[in-house]
Formats: sequence, C-alpha cells, structure tokens
Amino acid sequence: VSEASGEVVRRLWELFQERRWDDAALRLADDFVADWPHTGERMRGRDNDIELNRNYPEPWSIEVRRVVASGDEAALEAAVSHPGGISHAAGFYTVRDGKIARATEYWVDARSQEPPAWRARWVETIE
Amino acid sequence: VSEASGEVVRRLWELFQERRWDDAALRLADDFVADWPHTGERMRGRDNDIELNRNYPEPWSIEVRRVVASGDEAALEAAVSHPGGISHAAGFYTVRDGKIARATEYWVDARSQEPPAWRARWVETIE
Repeated sequence: VSEASGEVVRRLWELFQERRWDDAALRLADDFVADWPHTGERMRGRDNDIELNRNYPEPWSIEVRRVVASGDEAALEAAVSHPGGISHAAGFYTVRDGKIARATEYWVDARSQEPPAWRARWVETIE
Repeated sequence: VSEASGEVVRRLWELFQERRWDDAALRLADDFVADWPHTGERMRGRDNDIELNRNYPEPWSIEVRRVVASGDEAALEAAVSHPGGISHAAGFYTVRDGKIARATEYWVDARSQEPPAWRARWVETIE
C-alpha cells in the first residue's frame, strides 16, 4: 500500500509535466478536492483541478524532488522552474482506491520572503 | 523504521511547542542542516537551529496536522498560530541513527498570496 500511494502521486506530477491531462485525470477521484492555504483557494472536483492545471500559463517545468508515502498518505516535494524563477511545492495527499482523493498543497516562490534581521546570527545564505 | 522516522520528527515539533529546547536538541544530529528555500536561509548545525527557534518571537502555538514517514524519510505538515495569523509549515526530513540529519522546510502565511484572476473560474474560496 505504501508504494502505491506514493507512486500514484508521483505519476500525477509526471503526467502534468508531460501535459497528458486526460491521463492525469485518471489518477484523481471524481470528487477530488485540493486546498491551497497560501491563497485560500480550493479546487473542488477532478475536472476543475485538471482544467486549472491545463490552463496554467506556460512555460513551466516540474522537477519532483522527493516522495514520502505510508498507507493511504503521501507527501511530495517539487520545484517548478518558470521565467519568473523557481516555485517550490510541498503537497500532502490522501489516496483512496488507487486514486488521489484529497490534497493540500503549499506553494512558495524561492527567496520570496525577506529573512528577518533578528535571526541572521544563526543562518547562512543558500548559494 | 517507518514509524521511528515519523515519530522523531513529530517529537521534535512537540518539544518545540513545549519550549523544551534542550530535549529538542537531542533529536537533531550534531551536523544537522535545515534549508528554508522561501528565504534562502540555511541553519547549519544543531545549535544554530535550536537557538534560532528558542529566540523566535513569542507568542506562537504549533498544531501538527500530519506526519508521513517511510524508511529514513519523513514529511510533516503543521500550522502555527501567532498574532499575525496562521503560518503553514511543510517539512521534509531525513533521519539517521534516530536523529534528524537534514531538513527542508517551506513556510508560507495563510492567504499571503493573491489568487490570480485567470483561474478564478475553477476555484472556490476556503471559508
């Protein structure tokens, strides 16, 4: 079960990268729901999620960095390159009957937040 | 092994919440490294990480929402409440000999990004 959940999530992202939208849709439950807390957006239903992604302004390229899965749960870390830079995605997924039923994804652009001065003494800057 | 990795990561966050900094330090490898891609910051070494967290401006309260783990890898989803609102954390961890050796954490404030108009037709607003 562990590998199955991680593999279906990894496959979804690979199919997005290949712009194989109809095949990607097969990995989502009909009543799939995805939340993006950073914007307060919710994609309700497989079709809304696929259409949003299909219409995401090009160009962009996904690099899946890590998948961790156990039982029905999976987490995926990815970096998406686009003309504006790199956006990082951290997603948490629940898989049901081999399809993704629920997602919560956090998206944040690289270096989009200014490091506060108070903690500078304990950090380095990533090259 | 699966449970062990997830449990040490969950315990770290619980000990942070309890402000038990010395006990939290015991869960980190001496050469622990944590990256925050959203700010371009790197905490190198257990002591730097603990001191940064110990000095994080109060008040704040952690709610761990999910832990997914397999083998040496774990992912944790948390929400941190503070006077400015809610910050979401999504962390990916590598555990070695029962201690956390490596972390990549993404932090993003709730509703800190404006939803683009082009995708409004496929989304709802989270209550």
